[in-house]
Amino acid sequence: MAIQVSVVGSGVEHEANAEEVGRLLAERGATVVTGGLGEVMAAAARGAKNAGGTTIGILPSETRDAVNEWIDHVVVTGIGHARNLAVVASGDAVIAVGGRYGTLAEIGLALTLGRPVVVLEPGWEVEGAQRARTPSEAVEFALAAARQTGLT
Amino acid sequence: MAIQVSVVGSGVEHEANAEEVGRLLAERGATVVTGGLGEVMAAAARGAKNAGGTTIGILPSETRDAVNEWIDHVVVTGIGHARNLAVVASGDAVIAVGGRYGTLAEIGLALTLGRPVVVLEPGWEVEGAQRARTPSEAVEFALAAARQTGLT
Amino acid sequence: MAIQVSVVGSGVEHEANAEEVGRLLAERGATVVTGGLGEVMAAAARGAKNAGGTTIGILPSETRDAVNEWIDHVVVTGIGHARNLAVVASGDAVIAVGGRYGTLAEIGLALTLGRPVVVLEPGWEVEGAQRARTPSEAVEFALAAARQTGLT
Amino acid sequence: MAIQVSVVGSGVEHEANAEEVGRLLAERGATVVTGGLGEVMAAAARGAKNAGGTTIGILPSETRDAVNEWIDHVVVTGIGHARNLAVVASGDAVIAVGGRYGTLAEIGLALTLGRPVVVLEPGWEVEGAQRARTPSEAVEFALAAARQTGLT
Repeated sequence: MAIQVSVVGSGVEHEANAEEVGRLLAERGATVVTGGLGEVMAAAARGAKNAGGTTIGILPSETRDAVNEWIDHVVVTGIGHARNLAVVASGDAVIAVGGRYGTLAEIGLALTLGRPVVVLEPGWEVEGAQRARTPSEAVEFALAAARQTGLT
Repeated sequence: MAIQVSVVGSGVEHEANAEEVGRLLAERGATVVTGGLGEVMAAAARGAKNAGGTTIGILPSETRDAVNEWIDHVVVTGIGHARNLAVVASGDAVIAVGGRYGTLAEIGLALTLGRPVVVLEPGWEVEGAQRARTPSEAVEFALAAARQTGLT
Repeated sequence: MAIQVSVVGSGVEHEANAEEVGRLLAERGATVVTGGLGEVMAAAARGAKNAGGTTIGILPSETRDAVNEWIDHVVVTGIGHARNLAVVASGDAVIAVGGRYGTLAEIGLALTLGRPVVVLEPGWEVEGAQRARTPSEAVEFALAAARQTGLT
Repeated sequence: MAIQVSVVGSGVEHEANAEEVGRLLAERGATVVTGGLGEVMAAAARGAKNAGGTTIGILPSETRDAVNEWIDHVVVTGIGHARNLAVVASGDAVIAVGGRYGTLAEIGLALTLGRPVVVLEPGWEVEGAQRARTPSEAVEFALAAARQTGLT
């Protein structure tokens, strides 16, 4: 089983960063887990796929209609925003790129479960989450933290 | 149906505040919704019951074994931390008293769903959540916001 | 805390039975837990309220818009059909009145969790669920089973 | 995205059938989705991996500790039995092999969501679920139904 890193967030202005994060994760052999929808989620998956990586999308809905086109494996949860818990719990580490309240909830849930969280600046400031200035730094921090937790 | 206010949080040092919040909500006729466990959750329910109020506890577990003794109506969800979504969604407004990452997640989920959130100081600083300096102020803000959203 | 009995099911042709079940449960002092929506859920709550009882509705949606008018305490879960787990887990016993696939899922989930299940005939035939011929019998069986499990 | 077929069930006596189902699905290019734990879930994944297929495991727990060794992609939901909804919702079709109450719940949830269900005999008899006498027949029925629903 490959290392899995969850990428969470939202905001069209953060898509370039998310795509770069996805690309770098794929190049390092990590599977990219996201919420399967648009903006940051789609950009991270696109970056990963363009680099030959593998992507998992965990949807809130009861169907897969809204899944973005860069998802290899789709999980249809039917549990709405409660699927945020599954998105972060499925990562050896979590990278937050932009995002609003849903992302804040994901950071809180990830830290509750003991998953390491990296926030790519700018983004939510939460004590206990590591901050990164660039996509490259975010990926380095996340992979280092993932190896330390030893989930995989 | 009475107005329902969810009280979230944790930390023994915040129990006195939580109990006062619960008491004031009950005196104003609001039902107190919590996660049904200890510390802030138990204190808020105790305050409400001692003032003759009504309490609902929404548990993460598959049994009611861990419910605190001041809960009138217990909801056993079996969905772990995903029950945080139900706790905040069930309130016309949400008051956060202390708390760590689980509370941060609840604030994020509440704001995602458009529920008004009041943070009793000290506590998480989140843009979009109103801040209150005293239990009395927190209850006033929450009830005013609840009436505005018009859920009930 | 009062004994809680969950009433699940659907089908307009079963509403009279559900209302009678709700009424009898309330007369015996049990709180009636349902999924909070229409048909059997509404009828059971109506029966309970008309007898002076207490009702809890556990909704699948993110708002309380769809709750029926006989619910005293509403739990808004936001988790869709996964709320069926909370409905049955919250009962000391479960009574199924009519119903289709959602009810079958609830019977399966209840038995998975060790909750006693009574099926009011006609209804799903599931090994492990007790069968009752009348609302009165269903309520007797459910209350007897609830006392044996000793949840309350 | 490949067709995804969910295999649900339990019982050591059904493992040979589950392994054959997993093998045949993989040979036909379908991804095998399971609950990620033991017995039928592990056997279906093992059959798929031995045939060069791809497997997804959707766990109830908050960690991946209990995942079986034949899972390629693990989804950690943290929502207990409510993850059954995600298991069946993620399949274009569902095959039930053996199983007890949890499987009955999964059949009910799948049919609620309109997912085609095939029960490999012996197994739960549920109106609306197709019955198959052999693993080969189960896989044929599931793939035919999956193409009809046109989810993929």
